[in-house]
Amino acid sequence: MASIGEAILGRAQALARHSDSPAHYTRTLFTPAHQAAARQLGDWMRAAGMAVRVDAVGNVIGRYEARAPGAKTLLMGSHFDSVRNGGKYDGVLGILLPMACVAELAARGEKLDVAIEVAAFSDEEGARFQTSFFSSRALIGRFDPQLLERRDADGTTLADAMRGAGLDPARATEARIDPSSLAAYVEVHIEQGPVLLGEGVPLGIVASIAGGTRHIVRVQGEAGHAGTVPMALRHDALAAAAEMVLAVEKRCGAGGSLVGTVGILKVRDGTGNVIPGDVEFTIDIRAGEDTVRRAAEQDVFAAFEAIARKRGVSVERTRTHEVSAVPCAPWLQDALAASVERAGVRAHRLPSGAGHDAMILAQVSDVGMLFVRCGAGGVSHNPAETITAEDVDAAAAALLDFLRRFEPR
Amino acid sequence: MASIGEAILGRAQALARHSDSPAHYTRTLFTPAHQAAARQLGDWMRAAGMAVRVDAVGNVIGRYEARAPGAKTLLMGSHFDSVRNGGKYDGVLGILLPMACVAELAARGEKLDVAIEVAAFSDEEGARFQTSFFSSRALIGRFDPQLLERRDADGTTLADAMRGAGLDPARATEARIDPSSLAAYVEVHIEQGPVLLGEGVPLGIVASIAGGTRHIVRVQGEAGHAGTVPMALRHDALAAAAEMVLAVEKRCGAGGSLVGTVGILKVRDGTGNVIPGDVEFTIDIRAGEDTVRRAAEQDVFAAFEAIARKRGVSVERTRTHEVSAVPCAPWLQDALAASVERAGVRAHRLPSGAGHDAMILAQVSDVGMLFVRCGAGGVSHNPAETITAEDVDAAAAALLDFLRRFEPR
Repeated sequence: MASIGEAILGRAQALARHSDSPAHYTRTLFTPAHQAAARQLGDWMRAAGMAVRVDAVGNVIGRYEARAPGAKTLLMGSHFDSVRNGGKYDGVLGILLPMACVAELAARGEKLDVAIEVAAFSDEEGARFQTSFFSSRALIGRFDPQLLERRDADGTTLADAMRGAGLDPARATEARIDPSSLAAYVEVHIEQGPVLLGEGVPLGIVASIAGGTRHIVRVQGEAGHAGTVPMALRHDALAAAAEMVLAVEKRCGAGGSLVGTVGILKVRDGTGNVIPGDVEFTIDIRAGEDTVRRAAEQDVFAAFEAIARKRGVSVERTRTHEVSAVPCAPWLQDALAASVERAGVRAHRLPSGAGHDAMILAQVSDVGMLFVRCGAGGVSHNPAETITAEDVDAAAAALLDFLRRFEPR
Repeated sequence: MASIGEAILGRAQALARHSDSPAHYTRTLFTPAHQAAARQLGDWMRAAGMAVRVDAVGNVIGRYEARAPGAKTLLMGSHFDSVRNGGKYDGVLGILLPMACVAELAARGEKLDVAIEVAAFSDEEGARFQTSFFSSRALIGRFDPQLLERRDADGTTLADAMRGAGLDPARATEARIDPSSLAAYVEVHIEQGPVLLGEGVPLGIVASIAGGTRHIVRVQGEAGHAGTVPMALRHDALAAAAEMVLAVEKRCGAGGSLVGTVGILKVRDGTGNVIPGDVEFTIDIRAGEDTVRRAAEQDVFAAFEAIARKRGVSVERTRTHEVSAVPCAPWLQDALAASVERAGVRAHRLPSGAGHDAMILAQVSDVGMLFVRCGAGGVSHNPAETITAEDVDAAAAALLDFLRRFEPR
């Protein structure tokens, strides 16, 4: 018989066949593939011994009752949408693994002091309508009706897409749950990075989800003829931007959980034989602690000003995004760490550089996160994303232990 | 009465009204505006005392006979097409100025030992069909019939555009002149850079036209999640490219006529929250001497390899263009310098960083070039391009002196 890990990998592969594209795995909100995946998840939840409901924004939620009525609910889950050409375990692992643990409990007739719910969130990546965390926000009562008018690349509104999936946009706010019913929220997720691989451990306990800021930076110098303007007389916006890119890399490479990335850089009206006069780039800076991130931002922007002054160019920045770091509840970290150790694994704590539904749930509940090691150098959001059945077995052992010993506070 | 300089500036402004666009000055091969400009130039040449012919590729050529039959021809000229949204003096000055000098000679009944021809080249920028030096190449017998199939942005072939301008594509090779008839080729041109402005002189004698190479460089690293990959484990293609941009700037800033420019840089599939895995950029390196340019190229590419090794990324380059430097004939440089000094101007010699029709004529004739100071910081290929009437007066005085003293070798 297949191990739990093997079974889960098999299911992740089967679920990835429900894709918007035959060429690669892409599953976005309310497409036919997305609805098919939702039905499949519901079937698996029922087979695991859970009562299943689909809420007003398309979340599929399985419930396994507690030993006694009136108990609180331990909510677990993650998302079943994907980025374009994504990885098969991102999100899905955090649905299939708790589901397998519940199946194990149900098969043995074990009931706990809490009810367990496993939520398959319909939209976390938000690739179709640029609606990150759409469905976990709805769950905690922060549904934004303005999103209903968002259009996808084909011009379809989110409201129409909801109707196409058999949902009523006017009732979307009904997805809200009562936060006082929650004992905690716990999310299992593939790490999406190379830290556990480097540490040589299959599991990690998330200490905090990094906060981050994004800026768009514009550097304006003087365009000119690439042949006729001597080097000493130039005000090259790209050379200035190149120095700024290296300043981000240097300052954010100081260690700890701090990271800084220039992901987009464009020479506006760039031509091979023209000195660049106008360059735009993005910066994404993240850290597990907000104070660390803000200090790095200050230093980076001071460096930008100095580079601009030295080179006779101008620099402007616009903040496009900011989220604060979200600490995971120490009591949940400790409980997860103890279970990880009982599963025979050294308990390594690490920050999560990526955002997760747990960031949203943290607004109404204590949250904990368990990471599973990501293979292939830590690649994610990519078809090369991979995990091993052994690592998933270790995660299942740890999570089952955690559930059996879980005590609401 | 207006000075020669004022008259020439007035004509350049009048000619710029023949534009493909009402919004800005753009004149491309064989458009209605281009044909109107050709007619205007022919009218002015006739008024200056020249016999005018339009050759098989649309060059308008005025001829002022020598004192005696059988004399050689001193060819002067430049182009009357423009880049998109260009400057009014680029090219046109090198037609209007010799034309004004001939008018001066004709008005006084002065004949020289050489015949003078003033060529208004129909296409040097090649903006419509990407055909640089189309018409000077045809003049020296290097017409490429494959160009006739080139299409503009609207799908019109060059052959059809020629027919629309009353020319027969099948006869394009007839534009060829007999090179043995030429005594020399001399081109007057706006500098298109800030060197004469910095030197404080209105005129410059071109020592050589810079040679240049263009490459496309591709840097491939490892894409990854901007939040989850620690800085020390990254292979960021953009950070590597940024270091390369600065290496080009540093090595090509070593002095002399050497210049190096990265004009285009693109992060392929760039996204704000993804570490760049694939970056492409262009390099344009030029110098008055080919040995200087090649040494710089070697050093730059060695620096690229070292940066790539250090960062664990790959770097590839493809050469897309190479032209050798073209020296101006020393005897023409000396004669122009002497005339410039007799016009009361210190004779400053400089390289031309930009390419000119003189590069093509140099394949069959000795060439000389006279630069006129460019205002507004040296801006060219831009509506802000400007020259002063006083500087054009100085150029006219020098060129008239040069013509009157010209002795074919």
